[in-house]
Amino acid sequence: MPTETKIGFIGAGQMAEALARGFINQNMVEAEHVFCTDPVEARKEVFRSFGTVPVDGNIAVAEAAEVIFIAVKPQYVPVVLREISPKLTEKHLIVSIAAGVTLAVLTEAAGPKAKIIRVMPNTPCLVGETAAAMCLGHGAGSADADLLQRLFESVGRIFRVDEKLLSAVTGLSGSGPAYIFLVIEALSDGGVRAGLPRDVAQALAAQTVLGSAKLVLETGKHPGALKDMVTSPAGTTIAGVHELEKAGIRAAFMNAVTAASARADELAE
Amino acid sequence: MPTETKIGFIGAGQMAEALARGFINQNMVEAEHVFCTDPVEARKEVFRSFGTVPVDGNIAVAEAAEVIFIAVKPQYVPVVLREISPKLTEKHLIVSIAAGVTLAVLTEAAGPKAKIIRVMPNTPCLVGETAAAMCLGHGAGSADADLLQRLFESVGRIFRVDEKLLSAVTGLSGSGPAYIFLVIEALSDGGVRAGLPRDVAQALAAQTVLGSAKLVLETGKHPGALKDMVTSPAGTTIAGVHELEKAGIRAAFMNAVTAASARADELAE
Repeated sequence: MPTETKIGFIGAGQMAEALARGFINQNMVEAEHVFCTDPVEARKEVFRSFGTVPVDGNIAVAEAAEVIFIAVKPQYVPVVLREISPKLTEKHLIVSIAAGVTLAVLTEAAGPKAKIIRVMPNTPCLVGETAAAMCLGHGAGSADADLLQRLFESVGRIFRVDEKLLSAVTGLSGSGPAYIFLVIEALSDGGVRAGLPRDVAQALAAQTVLGSAKLVLETGKHPGALKDMVTSPAGTTIAGVHELEKAGIRAAFMNAVTAASARADELAE
Repeated sequence: MPTETKIGFIGAGQMAEALARGFINQNMVEAEHVFCTDPVEARKEVFRSFGTVPVDGNIAVAEAAEVIFIAVKPQYVPVVLREISPKLTEKHLIVSIAAGVTLAVLTEAAGPKAKIIRVMPNTPCLVGETAAAMCLGHGAGSADADLLQRLFESVGRIFRVDEKLLSAVTGLSGSGPAYIFLVIEALSDGGVRAGLPRDVAQALAAQTVLGSAKLVLETGKHPGALKDMVTSPAGTTIAGVHELEKAGIRAAFMNAVTAASARADELAE
């Protein structure tokens, strides 16, 4: 059953579109209960095309919706919140998806009335498979968390963490898609090196990555145990695994997550 | 519309079960048109539980079905084929999913009548997302290839390649799940290193891997282009990517695929 809550988007970019389409497609909200605004008229037309209601200006969104997604570039978030601040009431829930903009900054800019939640989604949101985390801020309670949980489970998965862990989330799932794109490209190159046509190699690589992750998620088995199950003695797989271990790829991925996490801490300062 | 073709499984292990369930769930074949045998009675009971028809012995499968999946361990494949050989006709299509058993060996053991196809699936078949390849052997034509294409698209994706490329496929998609399990474990470790609880880190890691691969498959964009789209100047993601490049992970994955592929060549000799 769709929520009666009206949902607004300030900023109607790709991530906002992915969220709005996901919520509507999964019957979490009716399209006519979704409002948006954007300085680019073409983006409003895209939102109109799937039944949502574009309005003119940020204040109009605050007047139309109770849950307001702030989906503008991080540097504009405080500006937008200060603009709509006079219209915000205790019924408003501000959901910021801006990287590095802290709850303290959001609260200061939005004023004391609205409830606040920060979310760190990632780009697979565009295909309904985001890995996201949220942290509750000023005034937000478990009913708000439940609402966000239901909304985000229509476009992937979401976990609740303390704000201090959002940098770690940024380093892992926020930045992680880039690491996996690189892996898919390298696996494709390996397939081409071994003789496969590029299109077959890339499709096999991407499909293998997808299927393996799904196997972890659906079986609930430890990835190490799943690795053990497919490595026959003196077989092909352990020969490949050996090469990855020789290169220290475990440490490399840990370094990637911790370096990106540290950079997120720096940017949030 | 389900095919009228009767499908048999010699060997009713996990991969056979994943295939049979996929074909039936996707309405490719009716359960009562699927036959199987296995020396382990419990496996036959599993197959009976979803409506298929267990029979006693390999010859009974050959008598009941036209498309026969050979899903026993590689060393038993020639034995099984020699046993059923007297029952095989021009209407039979033998589909071997055994690694390293060549078309020449299959043809020699099955005799001159049956049509033969080799398939290299991978374990995400168990969750309906296999990345597979097939090569046509003795007597098999485009109608047989089309049938296998339809069947396998109910449990993932399949590509047609020359037999000489099956080792490359083995090195990439056959062995690839193990590489990705290792990546998911390492990303989880990175998340834990950065402060996340283990369960959140592993779920974010696996979901990020799944979503990123789906983004490659559904957008059809080059993984390099997708990587570029998410790497902001001096941002978190490029900091993580830098660590992966410092460790040479591209070469490591290419080495993994080529080493596993070379091992597959050795084993097929």
